Amino acid sequence: MANHTENAAMRRAIELSSRSQDTTPPNPDVGCVILDADGNVAGEGWHQRPGGPHAEVVALRAAGDRARGGTAVVTLEPCAHSGRTGPCATALADAGIARVVFAVSDPNPVAAGGASALRAHGLDVESGVLADEAAAVNTRWLTPYRTGRPFVVWKYAATLDGRSAAADGTSRWITGPQARAEVHRLRAAVDTIVAGVGTVVADDPQLTARDGEALLPYDTQPLRVVVDSTGRTPASARVRDASAPTWIATADEVGATVDGGVNLSKLVTALFDRGQRYLLLEGGPTLAGAFWRAGLIDRVIGYVAPTLLGAGPNALAEAGVDTINAAIRLELTDVATVGRDLRLVAVPRSDTTAVDVDGNEPHTGAVLHVSTSQEG
Amino acid sequence: MANHTENAAMRRAIELSSRSQDTTPPNPDVGCVILDADGNVAGEGWHQRPGGPHAEVVALRAAGDRARGGTAVVTLEPCAHSGRTGPCATALADAGIARVVFAVSDPNPVAAGGASALRAHGLDVESGVLADEAAAVNTRWLTPYRTGRPFVVWKYAATLDGRSAAADGTSRWITGPQARAEVHRLRAAVDTIVAGVGTVVADDPQLTARDGEALLPYDTQPLRVVVDSTGRTPASARVRDASAPTWIATADEVGATVDGGVNLSKLVTALFDRGQRYLLLEGGPTLAGAFWRAGLIDRVIGYVAPTLLGAGPNALAEAGVDTINAAIRLELTDVATVGRDLRLVAVPRSDTTAVDVDGNEPHTGAVLHVSTSQEG
Ligand SMILES: NC(=O)c1ccc[n+]([C@@H]2O[C@H](COP(=O)([O-])OP(=O)(O)OC[C@H]3O[C@@H](n4cnc5c(N)ncnc54)[C@H](OP(=O)(O)O)[C@@H]3O)[C@@H](O)[C@H]2O)c1
Ligand SMILES: NC(=O)c1ccc[n+]([C@@H]2O[C@H](COP(=O)([O-])OP(=O)(O)OC[C@H]3O[C@@H](n4cnc5c(N)ncnc54)[C@H](OP(=O)(O)O)[C@@H]3O)[C@@H](O)[C@H]2O)c1
Repeated sequence: MANHTENAAMRRAIELSSRSQDTTPPNPDVGCVILDADGNVAGEGWHQRPGGPHAEVVALRAAGDRARGGTAVVTLEPCAHSGRTGPCATALADAGIARVVFAVSDPNPVAAGGASALRAHGLDVESGVLADEAAAVNTRWLTPYRTGRPFVVWKYAATLDGRSAAADGTSRWITGPQARAEVHRLRAAVDTIVAGVGTVVADDPQLTARDGEALLPYDTQPLRVVVDSTGRTPASARVRDASAPTWIATADEVGATVDGGVNLSKLVTALFDRGQRYLLLEGGPTLAGAFWRAGLIDRVIGYVAPTLLGAGPNALAEAGVDTINAAIRLELTDVATVGRDLRLVAVPRSDTTAVDVDGNEPHTGAVLHVSTSQEG
Repeated sequence: MANHTENAAMRRAIELSSRSQDTTPPNPDVGCVILDADGNVAGEGWHQRPGGPHAEVVALRAAGDRARGGTAVVTLEPCAHSGRTGPCATALADAGIARVVFAVSDPNPVAAGGASALRAHGLDVESGVLADEAAAVNTRWLTPYRTGRPFVVWKYAATLDGRSAAADGTSRWITGPQARAEVHRLRAAVDTIVAGVGTVVADDPQLTARDGEALLPYDTQPLRVVVDSTGRTPASARVRDASAPTWIATADEVGATVDGGVNLSKLVTALFDRGQRYLLLEGGPTLAGAFWRAGLIDRVIGYVAPTLLGAGPNALAEAGVDTINAAIRLELTDVATVGRDLRLVAVPRSDTTAVDVDGNEPHTGAVLHVSTSQEG
């Protein structure tokens, strides 16, 4: 049984694991705390980017000799394979670590086996400590193993009254420069950007990760996917330019729904089979509604501008909800200001308990983080 | 010139003045700090409710003998009249205060004259210190003097995608019990609740301030106003019940717009003439749009539920905006969680500078307060 000190260290490791979420993909978000033989914190680390040292290695380096006889507390099972870096199980054993406490078992068949490797080295190993909390931070990486499809983030931008464009179709710019810069960083973090052909025809977006006019480094440019039943994406569409790979996903190629649309479950499975793990759904409202109907959205990021339009399309359409009790229910997990705008992050509710007659409902206890950013 | 200590005390007094905003109406929000002769804080106070002691009196009581030879720092000019409490100018002089620093001059012709009364008592008086900041907190009370109409708060409830009802018209409950309880406290604070006849016909709301089923004390029940050009509010409408006074405001009685609607500028002037000073506009979307077009909204309070509908009416309609650059631009002043929901407070932007070609815009420097509430 993990003791009080180890539990506290795991809480800290989970916090560390949340630090580099924009730069870790496609790798997991992992944090590590090394306790010395007396249970004092000797080193901390988190995984910052692919190719960079794993959290355990960073923490071991910080701990130095104090690691000997100590305990490594890690949010994910240490790896047993040699990727771009050596196996962490070996590094932990070599550093003289006596005990390893980890939260979540590695679902990756290539990297798994860390626990047995550690035991083979004679270390004491305990798993499952604060596993739910650790998994929540690492859900972007863990979800595809469970679902067999990429982790899907639906991003929208809207006014306070929920409009994503004005009555005349104009939508440049709903949100401010800071929010737009954030979206470009998000695009650079994912491996797949999806938009409906409606958006491509209406707005002709390039769907690349840019800093101003400059493309972010080419290897961060995600695959662009246009959901386009009949392949009507114009030949001149910017989404077809040479700046990034593009897939015009037609019903013929992917499989069709009963009404001739692209079968979205088959689409995301096909993307998974191509190795895609992190998908940003950029709209429009019709395609977003279809993703919701298919139950394919894992996280919502909404940028809400402090403006009002009173007319124009909404950020979401045709989500299959016709009455208030059937509303798609989410839990806010983060609220922050970004420049003048508000960024809301929410996840689908796991509990399905309906509200009672007074509209009261049980609380799930999710932690909401609220913050104000400094603006430029 | 107010010195550094007095400026700091004024900042504190402004903060104190913001404490009882739900219970002070129809009185102003006022805060006071008493500095002793050495410039140390000797007492603090703020006005809590009508009939209760004024901020100056609370602070003088807290300061006791230390007020003698000291300085009173007040966010509003001390009153010179005897209302339910004696004049503060006299109380300050009697306590031996040597100097009074205040922020905003009293625009109320009945209470004004405090500065001259203080000077007549031989006190040193300085006005205008941090006047803008103090006025911002007290804007609910100050605005009617400037505009000749009640302070108008537009409240809406909507989903993340901006819907105020589902496709079938159901809207019970969009937001949770904590948000609804807050709206009832807000209703108890205002003296006027306005709704359009569309809402009255669709939802048959009672428009009273309640705690569960129980009406809040009768003297807190505001006047209910239905904006109803032709007087088609049903005889059986709950808004006509005996629980509170009601005015069915028709175009005949108030004055008509060119298209036969109720002239809203005349409506709010008529309400001012009846003594109404604090108006809560509860919708619906059509009437809210008309209030925006008429430039009659001073503050927005939005309750945003973490749900999605994908269909149904928006919280705002027909606001006279047809393209993105004509959007009504607001500044968020407060963001907080209320139970599972989000409460956003915003005010119309005073600067009208359009965004540049990149969507960048100058920052007005308004302070945004972001917080999480504890929930039950
Ligand atoms: N503010 C924002 O966050 C934001 C983001 C993006 C877009 N927008 C706005 O959204 C508008 C365009 O949105 P939209 O709703 O018209 O189009 P959309 O959602 O981008 O694309 C919908 C189209 O995708 C195709 N499709 C193929 N398979 C589908 C399936 N299974 N389910 C649903 N659609 C499928 C259909 O066209 P086919 O039948 O031809 O295949 C469908 O009409 C633009 O005005 C744009 O400005 C706003
Ligand atoms: N979620 C929320 O926050 C919220 C709050 C309130 C209502 N609602 C929803 O809103 C819906 C009703 O809204 P609505 O837009 O149909 O009606 P509304 O805004 O409540 O009332 C509009 C009506 O007011 C009358 N009116 C008179 N003078 C006017 C003027 N100068 N400008 C505009 N209107 C004037 C007009 O009817 P006459 O021509 O007959 O006078 C007009 O049709 C309901 O479904 C309700 O559930 C939602």
